[in-house]
Amino acid sequence: MPKPPLPAVLEEFLSHPNPAVIATIGRDGGPATVATWYLWDRGRVFVNMDERRKRLANLRRDPRVSITVLGDGDWSRHVSLRGRVVSLEPDRYLDGIDRLSRHYTGQPFAQRDRGRVSAWIEIESWHAWAGVGPWIESG
Amino acid sequence: MPKPPLPAVLEEFLSHPNPAVIATIGRDGGPATVATWYLWDRGRVFVNMDERRKRLANLRRDPRVSITVLGDGDWSRHVSLRGRVVSLEPDRYLDGIDRLSRHYTGQPFAQRDRGRVSAWIEIESWHAWAGVGPWIESG
Repeated sequence: MPKPPLPAVLEEFLSHPNPAVIATIGRDGGPATVATWYLWDRGRVFVNMDERRKRLANLRRDPRVSITVLGDGDWSRHVSLRGRVVSLEPDRYLDGIDRLSRHYTGQPFAQRDRGRVSAWIEIESWHAWAGVGPWIESG
Repeated sequence: MPKPPLPAVLEEFLSHPNPAVIATIGRDGGPATVATWYLWDRGRVFVNMDERRKRLANLRRDPRVSITVLGDGDWSRHVSLRGRVVSLEPDRYLDGIDRLSRHYTGQPFAQRDRGRVSAWIEIESWHAWAGVGPWIESG
């Protein structure tokens, strides 16, 4: 898989509020996936979780993740990013989840009574597909 | 996470040609994700891969997978399935990929010059989300 930096066309794709799925490693070493909001910010990926989610326990044990981002409305184009969480911090004032919520919905996050945690992910490799073949082969 | 069988409303959801992402375990033990077509068939999941994909090498090494299925057009609803591949067979006559292609596009699969492999996945646990909370808590 190619290494960063990503080609500009993929950075542009990732800048949209696309559907995405993140995989972490469970306690048993198997994969666990869930849909997620994400933000692409100058080569890193930002995500945010409810503090009681299994995903968070997984990340504390093993920081490795893989994220697949689907084209919004046309998921024949998709970009997958492998990397690791390099920062995991309490989102004390909910500004992390608000940033994501504004990106996806235009509004601050509605649910304000639950602790949340923000994570930054460094990308180690990527691949990009369009239909049955590579969309772009390397940076 | 709840165990199968899934509630009827989730079986109905999974029967549509929804966007989906599958995670496998890479050689290094980290997760690897990619978008995929899938079919829900009486409690099992059917997928099909180009024989040269890393995903296939991963599955031969470790059969554990996790699949997240997004609502088509509204991905605030999503269902995640954890399980393992119980059958991995050459798709000699391309009837496996054709079945998937007809489900998603209404047409047989266009690319007919590449070897493909079909896989059946048995589901061991699931979760279903709607927005910020559980969609359905158990079967």
